[in-house]
Amino acid sequence: MQQLTPNPSYSLTIRVQLPHRAGMLASVLTALAEAGGTLGQINLIQQTRKSIIRDVIVNAYSEIHAEELVNVVKNLPEIRFLSVSDRTFEVHHHGKISVHSKVEVNGQDDLAMVYTPGVGRVCMAIAEDINRAYDLTVKGNMIAIVTDGSAVLGLGNIGPEAALPVMEGKAMLFKKFGDLDAFPICLATQDVDEIVNTVKYLAPTFGGVNLEDISAPRCFEIERRLQEELNIPVFHDDQHGTAIVVVAAMLNAVKVVGKPIDKIRVVMNGAGASGISVARLLRKAGVANIVMCDSKGCLSSDRTDLTGEKLEFATSKSGSLADVLVGADVFVGLSVGNALTPTMVRTMADQRIVFAMANPIPEIQPELVEDDVAVIATGRSDYPNQINNVLAFPGVFRGALDSRVSKITTDMYLEAAKAIASLVSPNDLAPDFIIPSVFDPRVASAVAAAVTQCAREAGLANL
Amino acid sequence: MQQLTPNPSYSLTIRVQLPHRAGMLASVLTALAEAGGTLGQINLIQQTRKSIIRDVIVNAYSEIHAEELVNVVKNLPEIRFLSVSDRTFEVHHHGKISVHSKVEVNGQDDLAMVYTPGVGRVCMAIAEDINRAYDLTVKGNMIAIVTDGSAVLGLGNIGPEAALPVMEGKAMLFKKFGDLDAFPICLATQDVDEIVNTVKYLAPTFGGVNLEDISAPRCFEIERRLQEELNIPVFHDDQHGTAIVVVAAMLNAVKVVGKPIDKIRVVMNGAGASGISVARLLRKAGVANIVMCDSKGCLSSDRTDLTGEKLEFATSKSGSLADVLVGADVFVGLSVGNALTPTMVRTMADQRIVFAMANPIPEIQPELVEDDVAVIATGRSDYPNQINNVLAFPGVFRGALDSRVSKITTDMYLEAAKAIASLVSPNDLAPDFIIPSVFDPRVASAVAAAVTQCAREAGLANL
Repeated sequence: MQQLTPNPSYSLTIRVQLPHRAGMLASVLTALAEAGGTLGQINLIQQTRKSIIRDVIVNAYSEIHAEELVNVVKNLPEIRFLSVSDRTFEVHHHGKISVHSKVEVNGQDDLAMVYTPGVGRVCMAIAEDINRAYDLTVKGNMIAIVTDGSAVLGLGNIGPEAALPVMEGKAMLFKKFGDLDAFPICLATQDVDEIVNTVKYLAPTFGGVNLEDISAPRCFEIERRLQEELNIPVFHDDQHGTAIVVVAAMLNAVKVVGKPIDKIRVVMNGAGASGISVARLLRKAGVANIVMCDSKGCLSSDRTDLTGEKLEFATSKSGSLADVLVGADVFVGLSVGNALTPTMVRTMADQRIVFAMANPIPEIQPELVEDDVAVIATGRSDYPNQINNVLAFPGVFRGALDSRVSKITTDMYLEAAKAIASLVSPNDLAPDFIIPSVFDPRVASAVAAAVTQCAREAGLANL
Repeated sequence: MQQLTPNPSYSLTIRVQLPHRAGMLASVLTALAEAGGTLGQINLIQQTRKSIIRDVIVNAYSEIHAEELVNVVKNLPEIRFLSVSDRTFEVHHHGKISVHSKVEVNGQDDLAMVYTPGVGRVCMAIAEDINRAYDLTVKGNMIAIVTDGSAVLGLGNIGPEAALPVMEGKAMLFKKFGDLDAFPICLATQDVDEIVNTVKYLAPTFGGVNLEDISAPRCFEIERRLQEELNIPVFHDDQHGTAIVVVAAMLNAVKVVGKPIDKIRVVMNGAGASGISVARLLRKAGVANIVMCDSKGCLSSDRTDLTGEKLEFATSKSGSLADVLVGADVFVGLSVGNALTPTMVRTMADQRIVFAMANPIPEIQPELVEDDVAVIATGRSDYPNQINNVLAFPGVFRGALDSRVSKITTDMYLEAAKAIASLVSPNDLAPDFIIPSVFDPRVASAVAAAVTQCAREAGLANL
């Protein structure tokens, strides 16, 4: 078994009853640590002269490891195991978002203003000038997070209900980082026409549409048609959010290794929605040499099975990922867990850069190659250099809504990427610090400002 | 011009600068009162030795009256008019609801639990058992408020954007009274098939669907088809919410006048969605004699223009509303403002009951007939006996979601009506108190309990 890092996604609260004497808690903690768990908060719940009840928070690295940790505690002499709860499931209890009123309704006067009869006057003002929806309703700050559940994280086609926790999480991040209201729309259809129509019908409530976790190639058509038919911005985050953050990280990674961006050879694994968009934005950022692979190997001009978007990146090269990776400067993975081996990494050029962004399991666990690469980044929050879309989408939509653009352009994507990259100062830039933390409070406003500025310069800003 | 009552839906904040000496504020207040405005809060904003700035809140009864009040102040000697703001528009600034996170995201650990990678485990739990969406997502407490903007309040077909303030207001009421999360879905289509499909596609996020302000007869088909095709409750509030509160008020009104409910003759004006549903529930509550009118007069078996729902209430009677109203015990109006005249009211039987529920202008202003009726009720919050759906829908959905029914039945409607009526104790029952206040904190829980109990007895409760 690979040695993986325990992380809070497998975090347990284990409640135990201990005899009230020295060394008992230590025996529990030692046992958990020896079994590979990392300890968090330890809370005293109750104590009597004879016994103490404590909650011990411990992180595991997998579901099986979590079970092992529980069994370790159960088998300790003199320790009484009381219960275990899974903290990730606990925070999801009854969902993670709620709808609040912004004004109080404490009496008839309030009711007569926010609801009938007073609201009728506000309705008529909008009926007379539909643009007033922006100042008299939630529209101007409200994002629809639309998915069909067909390509959720790295989990695949798990359907709209199972996708909802991700979309709720996304709504939380829109709020925290962009001060935007966002609402999950998980659709019980995977038909392109039906999705397009449904989103068009929903649009009046929303100031923008964030498409999410819709599988390729349907996502391309859905986004294109919605952009054509709606007058609010439509942004497929898996494509463009990912592209923005990957390019941001790349701009800094090539500085770390001292290679000019137009000279690097990039091998990408994964030619889905995010892969295609990343490749396009890397090109726009100056990368000239990109070889893409899908699950069948290199996108070669010789192949007859390639469709529209993939053809765009077909080259004269052929072979497997391992074949084309030999001598490459950069690996960018947007594919599946464990697609890359340490052996393959070691065939790359010196000062190699690896972006292993498959979720939730990266193409390669960083522990396995930390001494073999110049820079490694993943999509995970529990390793350094987290290339996470949350660096992009809140600021992108904040800027788009603040300037009330009807479209978010590729120029805006690139400016957003540069804005993110610029937040790592030359002094701080290092192999394990190529991209700011998602909790860096400057990120969203820097991205919003870049988008707004780009919109103004292009004459696209309507506010 | 009829003498109308000023109300907070036309509420102004007038800012004035007065010379700092006795009697100046009084001159402003006297002038406003003489012009028919009713005064609210008066705030001191700033004062110097020479002058005082004050905000005076004053209610008008119409847009024109509001302008008159402003002009009255502008024309006062020695008073300097500074500004006026419309309080109803102020509370609508940027909308009335927002989406909040229920848990904090303050660091990488939180992020790893509420979002990637931890959220993936929660997604998989739902993918394996779709029912877990009820305990692991917002679904179990989330209502979609769906409209197409075709019949908004009494304002007609004003479209989805203009309908949004009403739906936001409704979401606030769901929260305040039912502790339910609700979200406005304002659809840019008025095609029955498209609405049905769209709501079906949206359903995964929601535990219930509240249809709102959709015109008849389309609303009947939309509701019926959604009830058949979805496994979450679908409730057209204009129909059934109205029916519940009208029947609740009727149960008490007939007690006030001492007439048995099965002996009264009811004339209804308005055979739209709410009229039909009210008539059906009145029948179920025991009313045997109902004559309905639409804009062309009495629903007569002789008429050739009647469609499905209206045919259900066609009788051998014919003539105009005025004709059939002669000798009636009860008038129930769900039609348009000013459809009823004092002369018509005086032709009714003794101890007459008038429910004038058109919004925002009732069929007859209560001031005009207060001495001619035994009981009068309206839909407005600024008169006694407000028959307002907010008495019903939060509790109905609270009960439906608490017992996780897949349908809300007509038995549940009637039990909800009885529960509301029962909150007016025999001692309190009076011509001006036939229905509890919408701010009576017992209402929603009483309605929820009635719905839950009814669900259990019918074997429909799934929780």
